[in-house]
Amino acid sequence: MSITAAQGFLASGVVAGLKSTGARDVALVVNTGPEKVAAGVFTSNRVVAAPVTWSRQVLADARVDAVVLNSGGANAATGAEGFLDTHRTAEHVASALQGSGRDTSPGDVAVCSTGLIGVRLPMGRLLDGVDDAVATLTEDGGADAALAIMTTDTVPKEAVAGSDGWTVGGMAKGAGMLAPGLATMLCVITTDASLDASRADAALVDAVRSTFNRVDSDGCMSTNDTVLLLASGASGIVPEEGAFEDALRAVCAELARGLVADAEGASHDIAVTVANATTEDAAEAVARAITRSNLFKAAIFGNDPNWGRIISAAGTVPEDVAPFDATQLDVTVNGVQVCRASGVGDPREGVDLTGREVRIVLDLHAGDAEATVWTNDLTHDYVHENSAYSS
Amino acid sequence: MSITAAQGFLASGVVAGLKSTGARDVALVVNTGPEKVAAGVFTSNRVVAAPVTWSRQVLADARVDAVVLNSGGANAATGAEGFLDTHRTAEHVASALQGSGRDTSPGDVAVCSTGLIGVRLPMGRLLDGVDDAVATLTEDGGADAALAIMTTDTVPKEAVAGSDGWTVGGMAKGAGMLAPGLATMLCVITTDASLDASRADAALVDAVRSTFNRVDSDGCMSTNDTVLLLASGASGIVPEEGAFEDALRAVCAELARGLVADAEGASHDIAVTVANATTEDAAEAVARAITRSNLFKAAIFGNDPNWGRIISAAGTVPEDVAPFDATQLDVTVNGVQVCRASGVGDPREGVDLTGREVRIVLDLHAGDAEATVWTNDLTHDYVHENSAYSS
Repeated sequence: MSITAAQGFLASGVVAGLKSTGARDVALVVNTGPEKVAAGVFTSNRVVAAPVTWSRQVLADARVDAVVLNSGGANAATGAEGFLDTHRTAEHVASALQGSGRDTSPGDVAVCSTGLIGVRLPMGRLLDGVDDAVATLTEDGGADAALAIMTTDTVPKEAVAGSDGWTVGGMAKGAGMLAPGLATMLCVITTDASLDASRADAALVDAVRSTFNRVDSDGCMSTNDTVLLLASGASGIVPEEGAFEDALRAVCAELARGLVADAEGASHDIAVTVANATTEDAAEAVARAITRSNLFKAAIFGNDPNWGRIISAAGTVPEDVAPFDATQLDVTVNGVQVCRASGVGDPREGVDLTGREVRIVLDLHAGDAEATVWTNDLTHDYVHENSAYSS
Repeated sequence: MSITAAQGFLASGVVAGLKSTGARDVALVVNTGPEKVAAGVFTSNRVVAAPVTWSRQVLADARVDAVVLNSGGANAATGAEGFLDTHRTAEHVASALQGSGRDTSPGDVAVCSTGLIGVRLPMGRLLDGVDDAVATLTEDGGADAALAIMTTDTVPKEAVAGSDGWTVGGMAKGAGMLAPGLATMLCVITTDASLDASRADAALVDAVRSTFNRVDSDGCMSTNDTVLLLASGASGIVPEEGAFEDALRAVCAELARGLVADAEGASHDIAVTVANATTEDAAEAVARAITRSNLFKAAIFGNDPNWGRIISAAGTVPEDVAPFDATQLDVTVNGVQVCRASGVGDPREGVDLTGREVRIVLDLHAGDAEATVWTNDLTHDYVHENSAYSS
């Protein structure tokens, strides 16, 4: 159910023929109200796809009536023509919805695309798909929509939370910029809670910061990343302060964890926790340096608890970003403290890395702040999929 | 010849049994004067190996009489005992040299180590090796020394330049932190030019900046990287302003290029040039973002001129670091302009990536500064060597 779990939403997912596989590739999510509050977070890449440029404009007034999403093409690096394609898609969605009796305008239709960069979308097929998607909108279309946004994902990612009469549901696809040439993470979250625009925005920014932004599968930032929150107010309930925010964070965390678990070519999901940092930002910076070390990631692929690569990666973070004494680092890998005071600790032979999930804890002994960043290992399958895909 | 090409230097390379292969593993370079001027550049990693800590102290007075280097163990993450091991090695070198009639002291003996992190050196074998190395010092021992510092290098790296009666010679090993758990780049350069300490230091810092620091094989910074310049003044010549600096830069550039060419598991050497940036620093920052993109590196392994990954990596550089218009980027791959104004350019089928060397040019259209960073592709062999090595 996911994005149709909350009241006030219709969704669909159809086959438009954008994907050569014949799988579903156009999804539509419509907010039937009574409220149409929305918030969005987009890629921080300066090279952005046309749909990101468009949807940022749509979000400017914090109102979104519908979101159309396609896989099978990112519409990135497609120039002015690509932007016109996105614009035309939004106009087509609005007019098809108007034709079925719904009041909307193109400026309230967000657009998301995912797939290869540098290729124009086949607009005829896409617009026909939009017509199909409008015609098949239902109150339980969330699952079809979640299928239609998949690219190299092997399973759809959905999550639901909530309490006391209101619900938050979400769907997502992708992870980092794992898939070769694919532009990558899309996420739509719906809620029937009644939220004003500033609360929706603050809650989404905060949830993304500690969930999706802590997933760094391969350090590569997509041109299309988009997370949208749509609030219909259909429950008639204004959740208590903190309650909605917690539920939203839980949905984002579950979806983010699902992205890591389905990362292309990965054989381990790795949680790198940096503990006892001076600040959360410092902890995150150190964790990110570790999750971006190819040597560390390759070691985990080899089931090797190579703590030398962990402290060596930590040592690359400038002191003004993360103050710590580089001679006092402790490293625990799956519960075994293999490094003590930046030197040899307990025997590495005691570490079991045969499971999918790996837990690294680096203790900086510098403060009491902590952050966890998730990543994947660097595998032969990653190299294979990312070298063979677009050629 | 390399480091013994310049007058005033002796060198040797011996088998001490630190490597299980039985190959040479202890090298010694001695400056016989008349001058003993030296400069050094070390890793900027905050986690540093004991020999780096020691050699930084030795360089404080800009005098180095001898450098002892060992492969087969990095002496990194070995705590206070590791530092005592380094100290003891320098003392042993000084006393052995004194025993053979040379005037020196431990405080003028630099130490470099390379090999696995987190393992103590077998001091008995190492000190016996030092005795052998002192006993076998010759005026043409440079080649043996270059062999003795190799780890996973497949060929020794040596370079010579100079003119008008003075010479610069160098040897190096490693590349980035390519080799799994190995701590990595060591380089010794000798010259018989007469230099004062400030000129030696300025020339070395400048040469390293535009050569070794522009090699970024896998983005992983070692704990042991060291580049030393020793000047004997034995030619009696003070080179003209700029002449020595050019020769030193040429030697560093040749050695750096050799490191890339011998990078573990690599099948392509990739020069990423960022042209028409506002400053050289901006150009370097963008080039480095590209050379650190696993997606880009995997694409080159697959002989795929995937320009979408190039501009997408460029787009991750913050605007205050490198100002440019993200919609106006041109990309040329091996002479074919595959991307024009951040959109599709000439047909990618025209790009031949079957050779080892790949030339990428990204034109920012923002100024007139330029920088080139060298890297390697991301291959199955890289993953294999870095996942299987230390386990």
